[in-house]
Amino acid sequence: MKQSQIFTKTQKENPKDEKSINAILLQRAGFIYKEMAGVYSFLPMGLMVLNKISNIVREEMQAIGGQEVDMAILQPKALWQKTDRWDKGIGLEVMYKVKDEQMEVGLGPTHEEMLTDIIKNHIESFEDLPFSVFQIQTKFRKEARAKSGLLRGREFIMKDFYSFHASTDDFKDFYEKAKQAYLKVFERCGLKAIITEASGGDFTKDFTHEFQVISEVGEDTIYYCDCGGFSQNEEVFDKKVTKCPVCGNELKKAKSIELSHIFSLGTKYSEPLGAFFTDKNGVKAPIIMGCYGIGISRLMGVIVETSNDSHGIIWPKTVAPFACHLLPILSGKEEQDKEILEKANSVYNDLQKKGIGVLYDDRSKKSAGEKFADADLIGIPMRIVVSQKTLEQGGIEIKERNSDNVKIIKLEELHV
Amino acid sequence: MKQSQIFTKTQKENPKDEKSINAILLQRAGFIYKEMAGVYSFLPMGLMVLNKISNIVREEMQAIGGQEVDMAILQPKALWQKTDRWDKGIGLEVMYKVKDEQMEVGLGPTHEEMLTDIIKNHIESFEDLPFSVFQIQTKFRKEARAKSGLLRGREFIMKDFYSFHASTDDFKDFYEKAKQAYLKVFERCGLKAIITEASGGDFTKDFTHEFQVISEVGEDTIYYCDCGGFSQNEEVFDKKVTKCPVCGNELKKAKSIELSHIFSLGTKYSEPLGAFFTDKNGVKAPIIMGCYGIGISRLMGVIVETSNDSHGIIWPKTVAPFACHLLPILSGKEEQDKEILEKANSVYNDLQKKGIGVLYDDRSKKSAGEKFADADLIGIPMRIVVSQKTLEQGGIEIKERNSDNVKIIKLEELHV
Repeated sequence: MKQSQIFTKTQKENPKDEKSINAILLQRAGFIYKEMAGVYSFLPMGLMVLNKISNIVREEMQAIGGQEVDMAILQPKALWQKTDRWDKGIGLEVMYKVKDEQMEVGLGPTHEEMLTDIIKNHIESFEDLPFSVFQIQTKFRKEARAKSGLLRGREFIMKDFYSFHASTDDFKDFYEKAKQAYLKVFERCGLKAIITEASGGDFTKDFTHEFQVISEVGEDTIYYCDCGGFSQNEEVFDKKVTKCPVCGNELKKAKSIELSHIFSLGTKYSEPLGAFFTDKNGVKAPIIMGCYGIGISRLMGVIVETSNDSHGIIWPKTVAPFACHLLPILSGKEEQDKEILEKANSVYNDLQKKGIGVLYDDRSKKSAGEKFADADLIGIPMRIVVSQKTLEQGGIEIKERNSDNVKIIKLEELHV
Repeated sequence: MKQSQIFTKTQKENPKDEKSINAILLQRAGFIYKEMAGVYSFLPMGLMVLNKISNIVREEMQAIGGQEVDMAILQPKALWQKTDRWDKGIGLEVMYKVKDEQMEVGLGPTHEEMLTDIIKNHIESFEDLPFSVFQIQTKFRKEARAKSGLLRGREFIMKDFYSFHASTDDFKDFYEKAKQAYLKVFERCGLKAIITEASGGDFTKDFTHEFQVISEVGEDTIYYCDCGGFSQNEEVFDKKVTKCPVCGNELKKAKSIELSHIFSLGTKYSEPLGAFFTDKNGVKAPIIMGCYGIGISRLMGVIVETSNDSHGIIWPKTVAPFACHLLPILSGKEEQDKEILEKANSVYNDLQKKGIGVLYDDRSKKSAGEKFADADLIGIPMRIVVSQKTLEQGGIEIKERNSDNVKIIKLEELHV
């Protein structure tokens, strides 16, 4: 894509009302726009990143059998009253509510009620179980602390995933599969996630884990051991424990950001909502459920928060809006510039033909310094420069965003 | 995909609270679930159709240069006050409003204000123009008449598209391009759309057209000529006109469903919101805008409304959830059934290898009659049957959903 054709521009100054690095860099680079605290719009390159993250999540959910749906945002009051959450807990504390002449509804902060109500119309016997359902959708939560860019939103994008089982054993098997799928998601997004024992919140205390990433700006605190044998959220940590029960080393304490929370729901929703199945003996029983969330827009924020330098964002290849950023650097001399642009055009066409995503900085009025600064801010993993110097050396200059090494190579030597 | 793995089931009975064909068939076939009047969830096969429609729209918008974004649903009150629409017009009549301790916001029924506010921070001079921006997003509107399934929703999916220009001539050129792109979208979705002169609603009267599809359940009435030379919405029609001004034939009158509305916005939003550019002479001028909408979920409803029979839905190939529906019909005799299933499995594997979408009715307890009835209801374009009879004849039986012709062919003769 040609950079001149993207309507967004970079900003040199930090936005005045933001303190978090993800909000500052994503706005300066033109990925997001702040509508109000905790509410952001995603601009063209921001949406590209969001879609790449969503697709990684989608692939891993489908790999363990997840079926994708898109449920309504508007939540019927009657449904939430059945589980006693309309006037209590999440329904009281974080759900926005809306009225018109004919109805009162909530804006979905989570979808246990709605999905349980849907599936009960489709499930009859143990032969219809197990299965799992996910969606990637905009969610809404009242949020007094919306001060961390994409890390904590009033409006945010979430992948919520629910599983349905005939037995606790079957749920436990699936829970382990989901854990592994989540580790793959975060690894593919370039993040080192720590699986942490946590408190169940609204839910049960068995089978509840969070996926945490260590970060100074995190709101959580975890105690963990590098050996992987121990990790607990401060909420459930017994301060008398100081050493890892597995390897005996001293435990570490760190601030961290919660990427994900997974937990057992048991029959908390299936019973009040009437989601029963007939078991092998012909006996009716409530369906056993599990729930597995990932904040998709938060994940984008976390990636920026943990992968940046003083010049800008450093996108991992897997979620970058483009694989390459192509910068022709003009000399001001007509004949040489013609040659530089011809070479740059041929590199552009060649990469496109190979299906490699490339952002082509075709802006003729920008200086070399401005182009380099923008490239560092935007953070595309591979920078390709075509200039008088590179032509003289018979090639193109490449530099990875996360390294200072500059190399001159021939186009055919480029591997992205 | 194996049918036994999709959690939805078909229903034999029509839902009691629905009168419109699209709502009845889409629910019976398991594509959507009704949460309340005008609010539906999209189940796995429903989301597949929705995604296919969205991708057709996306491709045609990108083909004329549209850049995709995803703007916030929550709308700042201050922004809508600047255009005087918070307490008047659409903001008063159809926008849901929500409060918490810190803010009052609307749920986006349309995004002129928000996008104009975003782009004004990125546009400086005529050199930054023209460009166009679209999103595919859930919208909300208060709706007393939400009785037609996906045709009129309180919560619905819309593609909204906005263009930005330095001159009226440039806008006019783009408006024609958008018209042609829209015709392509509807043609690819299997719909014959009529471009109709319409009233501008909230907006200007110049350059406003609707795309209408003739249907008995439509809420609009149009006067038109088959020659294509004349078509007007009743709202703007002069009843004294009885003959086509182009070919002289008698005009026809019909009920129709509005698929899309496109119109000039002029400087209605750019002026109050301060979206100006510097022209070639260094003079500041407000940006000229156009607006182009398509109801994505409505489009899904219109396709069903105009393409069905007494047995169920007839999906056009381009938006069908799968290209083929594979039905092994068992005989009850062990040896023969083994052969039937082996053949069906090999057809399934072969189609999947070729990248052809196939729904495999692997449900062993369903009778031939139940399988055929479900296939007709779900409406996948091509039905493939493997049975004792087809094996004896050395092949598979194929039947298109919109035809009664049945043919026995060899697998290698199948072209989808």
